[in-house]
Amino acid sequence: MTTTAVNSYKALTDDSAIALARTLDFFPEGAKLESQEIGDGNLNYVFRITDSESGKGLIIKQALPYAKVVGESWPLTLKRATIEANALRKHGEFVPGLVPVVYATDANLALTVMEDLSHLTIAREGLIRGEAYPNLSKDIGEYLAKTLFQTSDFALHPFEKKRLAAEFSNPELCKITEDLVFTDPFFDFETNDFEPELRAEVEAIWNNGPLKLEAAKLKKSFLTDAEALLHGDLHTGSIFASDTETKVIDSEFAFYGPIGFDVGLFLANLIAQAVTREGEKREVVLHHIEQTWNVFSSNFSELWEQQGIEAFKDTAGYKEFVLEKIFQDAIGFAGCELIRRTIGLAHVKDLDSIEELERRIALKKQVLQTGEALILKRKELPSIAAVVALVEEQSR
Amino acid sequence: MTTTAVNSYKALTDDSAIALARTLDFFPEGAKLESQEIGDGNLNYVFRITDSESGKGLIIKQALPYAKVVGESWPLTLKRATIEANALRKHGEFVPGLVPVVYATDANLALTVMEDLSHLTIAREGLIRGEAYPNLSKDIGEYLAKTLFQTSDFALHPFEKKRLAAEFSNPELCKITEDLVFTDPFFDFETNDFEPELRAEVEAIWNNGPLKLEAAKLKKSFLTDAEALLHGDLHTGSIFASDTETKVIDSEFAFYGPIGFDVGLFLANLIAQAVTREGEKREVVLHHIEQTWNVFSSNFSELWEQQGIEAFKDTAGYKEFVLEKIFQDAIGFAGCELIRRTIGLAHVKDLDSIEELERRIALKKQVLQTGEALILKRKELPSIAAVVALVEEQSR
Repeated sequence: MTTTAVNSYKALTDDSAIALARTLDFFPEGAKLESQEIGDGNLNYVFRITDSESGKGLIIKQALPYAKVVGESWPLTLKRATIEANALRKHGEFVPGLVPVVYATDANLALTVMEDLSHLTIAREGLIRGEAYPNLSKDIGEYLAKTLFQTSDFALHPFEKKRLAAEFSNPELCKITEDLVFTDPFFDFETNDFEPELRAEVEAIWNNGPLKLEAAKLKKSFLTDAEALLHGDLHTGSIFASDTETKVIDSEFAFYGPIGFDVGLFLANLIAQAVTREGEKREVVLHHIEQTWNVFSSNFSELWEQQGIEAFKDTAGYKEFVLEKIFQDAIGFAGCELIRRTIGLAHVKDLDSIEELERRIALKKQVLQTGEALILKRKELPSIAAVVALVEEQSR
Repeated sequence: MTTTAVNSYKALTDDSAIALARTLDFFPEGAKLESQEIGDGNLNYVFRITDSESGKGLIIKQALPYAKVVGESWPLTLKRATIEANALRKHGEFVPGLVPVVYATDANLALTVMEDLSHLTIAREGLIRGEAYPNLSKDIGEYLAKTLFQTSDFALHPFEKKRLAAEFSNPELCKITEDLVFTDPFFDFETNDFEPELRAEVEAIWNNGPLKLEAAKLKKSFLTDAEALLHGDLHTGSIFASDTETKVIDSEFAFYGPIGFDVGLFLANLIAQAVTREGEKREVVLHHIEQTWNVFSSNFSELWEQQGIEAFKDTAGYKEFVLEKIFQDAIGFAGCELIRRTIGLAHVKDLDSIEELERRIALKKQVLQTGEALILKRKELPSIAAVVALVEEQSR
């Protein structure tokens, strides 16, 4: 049920969102519908439409023609709504249980109608409150392996892969990452944002030649390595979770890029959460870090063996080479993410919500050091256990 | 002057080619025009239209809706005519003297009207006859540096680079390379074609695990490394030359791929020519090999310094890293090209035209060994001089 309106773009209101929902063969005729706008209003409207009798609901997400970040506003392509919906659908082919169902889309109105996941919590919020989310890393490891393997040259006919790569060309959203993750934090650019107490550490990064060289290589990989259809922004704020469910949302950054990017972004956000915890609660997150990689690599390996179409797939060492590249890329990308989430434009609440200044600064210094070490040592770290050990070492 | 016909596809004849030429504001009104079909008829018609009074002429190249190779015939997209013309124009922005001028195109008829280069010789043919082409490597080194640097992320705004990458998505032609260069020769596939005298060497390749692993890595790079707008088929048969001029033609394989592929293909075809020569004539070609890389890398380096837009361009070691990657890729791709031109579907006349069986087989064995060594040692060879030394060593 795709709506085929030829409307030009117009921002939805509660009333027009309800009217749209009524056209969708989702609610019973004459249902009493309510609408609530639950988005943060920076990039999108998110209307939750519910049938007050049955409690049944759906989400209408509409992209705004601009982005607001820390008071700034700049125009941003509406095409991202189509990218997001199409990526959810494509990934949903491989992990139907781990993404929301897309009910309908309208490219002109830049909207996606999808499954209501309001019974779940944004993983970042829950983690900050101390949740364990026992299935999180198993589910995300599976999500990563299946979505990334199945959209790569290892699984797709080259015509289909290249068709998808062109379809998911996403220059505007990629540029946000190119700038905010891979460039600005490594230079004295005005987009950066950090406490004055971190200035010495930040200037050390700007003056760290070897670190910048490795960041340049990772940026090049992001710009050129068209390996698979990435989510493109897989942090813990893009995941809904409960103790039993995991759903990945917000795939408007999807594009064909290096497999390790999705893996690394998720790992980095777990690391940024782990450092804020202590004792057993910390162990839970460190275990998620290890398990994400372990589940990803074993699932990827199994798919390679069972469904791989590459003529060289049985050539000794090739699967291991590919997994090693993904691992090293992921660790490097995780390092870039840790740095930018500490001193760049967009921070993480895990760290920023720590009220005590001294502790916040100490943890941020630690995160910066971990990020630098991951970037510089990504080809030496032999295993995900060694990554966790490095995170632990930086905490002492 | 772009013709905007809405014709559906129809193969040209001498008469319709002349009629088309008359519409182009190229020849004086009432000129007495003659047409000669000079293509090889496997992939394209090539009509040379001349004004018998002035001697002035132009070329109309029309893609055929199928490809014929060794008697086989398979359908092949007509879109390649548009890719070819657009790549000639895009590359022509940076090296106007090294590609033919495109006068007009017609996507529906799959044709390109371009500069008549009949006063030049296909470089492969001339080289086989012993020509030296003193400008060849200087010109191709410059062509490679300028076309590849200027279409890369190092020179283009990311929006423009990604727009071009999508425009030049070229799945069908890429698949020919993926199969014939990177896959089939490494397996006992029926497309392969070699003298029975080479069977032992060929079977050794099929059973050489480490070689196949490196070939798999190079194939992966071809499939995923969207670095620059390549020519995509830059062998000596795609180059017109004289003692003073060089023009690169036949860019229907153009796509966004690894920079080293264009460099390596050209180097391999020079190597396949060098081994057929002796003494000073051989030195001429060995010098071309060295000079191609040296001119390419110094031009690329100069463009990087003077026109590079990458924020990390002055980060110590980054330019060197990029040039080293291109070099290693190029040497590996050259190795694949040498192997496939010896035992794959499409051979080179440099070797196949050697009538004496014993010498032909000896040289082909030598080319296979060189190809294998280049693939396996590409990360150890410190310089282009070391590559030439390796070629020489295999000749002894």
